[in-house]
Amino acid sequence: MVWVRVSKSDSFLLFMFLFALPLRCLQATQESPHIYTREEVRSHSSPETRIWVTLGCEVFDVTEFVDLHPGGPSKLMLAAGGPLEPFWALYAVHNQPHVREMLAQYKIGELSPEDKAPSTLKTSDPYIDDPVRHPALKVNSQRPFNAEPPPELLTENYITPNPIFFTRNHLPVPNLDPETYRLHVVGPPGGQSLCLSLDDLYKFPKHEITVTLQCAGNRRSEMTQFKEVRGLEWNIGAISTARWAGARLCDVLAKAGHQLCETEAHVCFEGLDSDPTGTAYGASIPLARAMDPEAEVLLAYEMNGQPLPRDHGFPVRVVVPGVVGARHVKWLGKVSVEPEESYSHWQRRDYKGFSPSVDWDTVDFDSAPSIQELPVQSAITEPKDGETVQSGEVTIKGYAWSGGGRAVVRVDVSLDGGLTWHVAELDGEEQRPRKAWAWRLWQLQAPVPAGRKELNIVCKAVDDSYNVQPDTVAPIWNLRGVLSNAWHHVHVHVAP
Amino acid sequence: MVWVRVSKSDSFLLFMFLFALPLRCLQATQESPHIYTREEVRSHSSPETRIWVTLGCEVFDVTEFVDLHPGGPSKLMLAAGGPLEPFWALYAVHNQPHVREMLAQYKIGELSPEDKAPSTLKTSDPYIDDPVRHPALKVNSQRPFNAEPPPELLTENYITPNPIFFTRNHLPVPNLDPETYRLHVVGPPGGQSLCLSLDDLYKFPKHEITVTLQCAGNRRSEMTQFKEVRGLEWNIGAISTARWAGARLCDVLAKAGHQLCETEAHVCFEGLDSDPTGTAYGASIPLARAMDPEAEVLLAYEMNGQPLPRDHGFPVRVVVPGVVGARHVKWLGKVSVEPEESYSHWQRRDYKGFSPSVDWDTVDFDSAPSIQELPVQSAITEPKDGETVQSGEVTIKGYAWSGGGRAVVRVDVSLDGGLTWHVAELDGEEQRPRKAWAWRLWQLQAPVPAGRKELNIVCKAVDDSYNVQPDTVAPIWNLRGVLSNAWHHVHVHVAP
Repeated sequence: MVWVRVSKSDSFLLFMFLFALPLRCLQATQESPHIYTREEVRSHSSPETRIWVTLGCEVFDVTEFVDLHPGGPSKLMLAAGGPLEPFWALYAVHNQPHVREMLAQYKIGELSPEDKAPSTLKTSDPYIDDPVRHPALKVNSQRPFNAEPPPELLTENYITPNPIFFTRNHLPVPNLDPETYRLHVVGPPGGQSLCLSLDDLYKFPKHEITVTLQCAGNRRSEMTQFKEVRGLEWNIGAISTARWAGARLCDVLAKAGHQLCETEAHVCFEGLDSDPTGTAYGASIPLARAMDPEAEVLLAYEMNGQPLPRDHGFPVRVVVPGVVGARHVKWLGKVSVEPEESYSHWQRRDYKGFSPSVDWDTVDFDSAPSIQELPVQSAITEPKDGETVQSGEVTIKGYAWSGGGRAVVRVDVSLDGGLTWHVAELDGEEQRPRKAWAWRLWQLQAPVPAGRKELNIVCKAVDDSYNVQPDTVAPIWNLRGVLSNAWHHVHVHVAP
Repeated sequence: MVWVRVSKSDSFLLFMFLFALPLRCLQATQESPHIYTREEVRSHSSPETRIWVTLGCEVFDVTEFVDLHPGGPSKLMLAAGGPLEPFWALYAVHNQPHVREMLAQYKIGELSPEDKAPSTLKTSDPYIDDPVRHPALKVNSQRPFNAEPPPELLTENYITPNPIFFTRNHLPVPNLDPETYRLHVVGPPGGQSLCLSLDDLYKFPKHEITVTLQCAGNRRSEMTQFKEVRGLEWNIGAISTARWAGARLCDVLAKAGHQLCETEAHVCFEGLDSDPTGTAYGASIPLARAMDPEAEVLLAYEMNGQPLPRDHGFPVRVVVPGVVGARHVKWLGKVSVEPEESYSHWQRRDYKGFSPSVDWDTVDFDSAPSIQELPVQSAITEPKDGETVQSGEVTIKGYAWSGGGRAVVRVDVSLDGGLTWHVAELDGEEQRPRKAWAWRLWQLQAPVPAGRKELNIVCKAVDDSYNVQPDTVAPIWNLRGVLSNAWHHVHVHVAP
């Protein structure tokens, strides 16, 4: 069994999460504590109702502590009404004795024993077997599961922790056995096909890269504000970054006997997720990209040093750096080289951009190319829309990314809706030329102009082809609400 | 002598231009004609002064013919007050007997004999030896020569005729002898350098591609309208398309012993044009692009089937598909591979983009990358700003292009300043994936909304990475006035 690969630091967290915390229940005081249900705890999630959280079987009222939280009140509020464990698992700094001691002051009781059992399962539900998700995720759709991290966690780390990496599923999550899993790679005409086990995939040279994935529908909710579209209401979080490892697709294709010929050929991927009629998720990318070692397309089996989580394609998914998330097919079952792009619905009848003049009566899906590389993008993650900031100085944070390996070279930030601009500081790793697959986080400390009661904060990024984001969303509006990359606005109040 | 290569159709035009027309002077009628000087002819260039043109030694008043001109009045007006020959050389359709007969009706006299002599030369002028240029070019700077074709000629042909291809010179044009010309290609450390004659270059496989060149300053005049910048006042014509042929740079570098290594290395180019201190024009591109056969970087010796014109780098220039014009070094003298990009002024202290907040007091040229690939671009060439169009239907034409081989997939056109949009029809060649080096011409026939007295016509293009043009110019304004690619506007009146 080689497929479970857990790093030392992660295994410590996993240990704390799975074993260490429940142990505390056995060590609870002998005094008879107040007993609460999970539902009671859930109803205490705002300053008005007071703010309760749980850790193991213990219940805490942290209302008075929220403003003292070293990571900021907004981070602690993510756990309001629920368990701390999923958040502490992300932030190892909490696993220290003095943190436990601080928390102990706020204990008000314990959870009822029956509240630790899993909820009842409905066996007729095709999503019954979907994995348990992190409570911080903002759910846009439960079935299929689609969810994004909240802005205040999104840019907390350059590498997005696996549990809060945005999830875009089209179908129920398959439950695959790594022992019997096989990847079918169709050979060229007259050649032999490959049938690869996970162990076979591990024998290819292991390639590791940091890649940002973005859904074509990221920031769709801003398009909807202009005019209705069909699609999930993504905020700014349908984007995340991970360190991926796996076999290079070009190595696997070469092993199967494929060569690059000057054609329109595509490499088609089929997932092992399927709808009730048996239709699997599918998508494709040009053969030229697949065969180019510099394009670094992966058949990934690791995400941030772990086996892929089930929501992210366990045991194998495609990672196509610089390309829209829809082509990064998860639970990969089959790879083939075809004369044209995939006939999948998601390749030919979705994930395409149209003029604002096109509606559902006039749309001709064949008239637009399927989205591959994405345009330049950026968004503000801090402060939040509607927040009140202190006068004096404001700190603004966000992310910026561009498709096709184009590096972000500058982020401009405005406090006055775009009349005047500041240049933000770019954090994180310098990027390789033509292979800038990952986002840049950025921040700006700017003086709040005296006497201002409100700020209309705007950001816009520039990539190394000097492409920029459009000023407004209406002229890029399209009926599916994809490719929403106009300037991002956040309106805040200034404390008097 | 292999370097003069003139195609059959071109040689016919050349013959007509150089020999056939002057012969007509000898055949002029025996009646004593009115004699006019060139200066007198030049003063007749508008309907108010009447419109005169010359052909050979004959002078014509074509005022009454202008509105009857089959190619449209604006095309004929380009020749108003001057000779027809340079325009007829572009449009072979004029070289027919019935055209001559039609013109003969408008003859009013002949040119004075002394007016055929070339103008006096000033020998102290470093630009003394610059070539004669086509009179249709709109000159932005005479010394060094910088000029663009007028909008109404720009998209008349998919391939821009050599005489009206936009010209961007930084220095006087060198006058090079193709017999003694040598290209110096520096070898790798410890290796041998090459010293290539034109005949040596011809021995490499000849590679031919259609490539659009664009100056980083194209459309700068629109930026200037918002706020002053330093630079030439280019309108929308600092862009043109030609069929280029030459040796691939990767073949020449390989012959010199260079290999692609994973570094920041650049290939540096030096021109044979130089300023009075002996400093030559120089620029560089990343080695990775230079060595990539798919990037098709050329050492070009042919432009549209002809040896390069002197203004375009005779006998050899670099052509870097998808990359800003400034890197297509003309009159190429030296190629070397260096650990970093060129130290040339034009690489490090010019041709870079900055935030609108940066001025000449705060600019740090090292903080921005040198422009290589250009962003998506489009402009309207017909109708012209301020023109009056007929009610009923309006025809709108223009060009669209993007850098980095990204194909233009759509052009949206608005008649109401961007509130509603039409999709234009794309003309010209379908483009190869990842190698869309040339522009798409486009047009739209649209009904003029009833009762409208004015139209605010706008265009914006989308490339296959779904990058779009920004709405307005102010937020992309920069102190050098480069990268001006906001929506293009043309205001016209509607005839009552």
